Amino acid sequence: MWDRFLRACRREPVDMTPVWFMRQAGRYMAEYRAIRKNHTLIQICKQPELATEVTLQPVKAMGVDAAILFADILLPLEPMGAPFEFAAGEGPVIHHPVRTRADVDALRVIEPEDGLGYVLDAIRMIRRELDGKTPLIGFAGAPFTLASYLIEGGKSSHYAITKRLMYREPEVWHALMGKLSEVVRRYLRAQITAGAQAVQLFDSWVGSLSPSDYVEFIQPHVRHILKDIETTSVPVIHFGTDTATLLELQRDAGGTVIGVDFRTPIDEAWARLGTGVGIQGNLDPLLLDAPRELLTRRIDDILRRIAGRDGHIFNLGHGILPETSPDAVRFVVDYVHERTRR
Amino acid sequence: MWDRFLRACRREPVDMTPVWFMRQAGRYMAEYRAIRKNHTLIQICKQPELATEVTLQPVKAMGVDAAILFADILLPLEPMGAPFEFAAGEGPVIHHPVRTRADVDALRVIEPEDGLGYVLDAIRMIRRELDGKTPLIGFAGAPFTLASYLIEGGKSSHYAITKRLMYREPEVWHALMGKLSEVVRRYLRAQITAGAQAVQLFDSWVGSLSPSDYVEFIQPHVRHILKDIETTSVPVIHFGTDTATLLELQRDAGGTVIGVDFRTPIDEAWARLGTGVGIQGNLDPLLLDAPRELLTRRIDDILRRIAGRDGHIFNLGHGILPETSPDAVRFVVDYVHERTRR
Repeated sequence: MWDRFLRACRREPVDMTPVWFMRQAGRYMAEYRAIRKNHTLIQICKQPELATEVTLQPVKAMGVDAAILFADILLPLEPMGAPFEFAAGEGPVIHHPVRTRADVDALRVIEPEDGLGYVLDAIRMIRRELDGKTPLIGFAGAPFTLASYLIEGGKSSHYAITKRLMYREPEVWHALMGKLSEVVRRYLRAQITAGAQAVQLFDSWVGSLSPSDYVEFIQPHVRHILKDIETTSVPVIHFGTDTATLLELQRDAGGTVIGVDFRTPIDEAWARLGTGVGIQGNLDPLLLDAPRELLTRRIDDILRRIAGRDGHIFNLGHGILPETSPDAVRFVVDYVHERTRR
Repeated sequence: MWDRFLRACRREPVDMTPVWFMRQAGRYMAEYRAIRKNHTLIQICKQPELATEVTLQPVKAMGVDAAILFADILLPLEPMGAPFEFAAGEGPVIHHPVRTRADVDALRVIEPEDGLGYVLDAIRMIRRELDGKTPLIGFAGAPFTLASYLIEGGKSSHYAITKRLMYREPEVWHALMGKLSEVVRRYLRAQITAGAQAVQLFDSWVGSLSPSDYVEFIQPHVRHILKDIETTSVPVIHFGTDTATLLELQRDAGGTVIGVDFRTPIDEAWARLGTGVGIQGNLDPLLLDAPRELLTRRIDDILRRIAGRDGHIFNLGHGILPETSPDAVRFVVDYVHERTRR
């Protein structure tokens, strides 16, 4: 069943539970490292042939039920006027962090064709290569997560500069979030037009906020994106980490499927979310490194909590880490398929 | 009412809600920075006169309802045989991370008098200086949080090395946690004997685990500590961050009061925890930097959710950050007192 992932997104019956992994194309695979030896991450993103090759690697090697576009959530920042680089071992560094009204005013609300055409080219090329055998997921970073990188200048532990701007200069904050959410909305629409059959919105760091902050400073902007994307027929996965107390608010902002990290038991999450959405998750990525006995015990626990309900997409609570064994990834795909065969 | 903090820990009526702050003695205060100019953090901890002076600074300047011993959760690691230092701007660095059975076997299960006597001396000196006017809180790091520093060698974002050891070598893991929990138990007992009138157990990073992991790998060790400390008459505050899905499990491990970070609405947390424990929290520390209108709105929200119920200790969801204005800290103490006067 080529479309079991898409059917699960729509909460339709499937022959077995679909499986894919965040960062399923990445450094844990020798095939990926071979390409990275001669190309930076950004070079791979910008050359559709390479992005296509890397996107397809885990589909071939692991038997996952969906391909996900190889790209980075920060790509839109460069054409918006905020160039960045990946410093060795440090993650992204934004050259000129955005912290003032003038910085925000200088950001361009781009059309994806201007500056992100290479992503759309990659999507078209991947769709041709997949040839209808596996669906393709597009994605974008959510406005808070993008804003946190822009404001902090990179990864942060307390999001102190971000929260200070948000609290002290709400007009500047909302102007920034307005620009980001409009770019993300256009970008996801363009990905869908180019051929993405589902999209995931990564609000990876939004769990650093209280529910009150989420309602006041985040939700309207996420809603701007997702209520528009929901008018297409394409499923949207709305994902975050540390979001145990935000799940209902995220659902209300939009999404066909809600992504849940490993902190929340998946049945409790789904009970709170109700029957109107699917659910994706939620194995701790580090369990891929656990002995098989423990790994299967924790997978069984997730499947038992789901108890055959339609609308579950098996995934991790966050991305695969570089040191993970490819064997373990392949094992999980097969094991979940085997255990959920109807 | 000198003991409103202790009364609130025991869920007894108080004249107004007690307030203290994690990291209330710290770099945000000029008085503290003046001492730090000539002494490292560890030097202050190891000289009871300095530790006493720094502990008293916020009591005098801010009017908080409790003093908290100035110390660091990592102090027990040095006499256990795992020396560390604070690298400039990087946080703690453990010289020889603990990653094997032999590493764990080499750790000493110390008596606090051997190697941590300076902490107990500081407690006695602080108690004399406080002269019964303000209660003193002692504290220790919880075993998971200590283990994560020991294993990673410092602060971590994914706790990958820690989780791998926990999953792959459960016997080594439990041996390590057993040693740490016994040292922490003895250390808290010794602090109480020296004069600490309440103690807080900081499991700051345990929220990086799923509930299943908490039950299997953490809870027995925390219980070993807290069920013993509960036999004293001294209240125990059991604190963590990112613990929205762990609260009941933490309560079951022990504690007179459960600390809640800003992610969980405090009324929802307390409803889940039940009437048998007090609650401490839960303002986002960054809100101290917010305009007064927003700051008071969020404090009012917490107080409204508590609605005059006995057993609430006002605090932040995590420690005060260095850039915080002392005026804001003082303002919050006065504001909470004013708004909760019975």
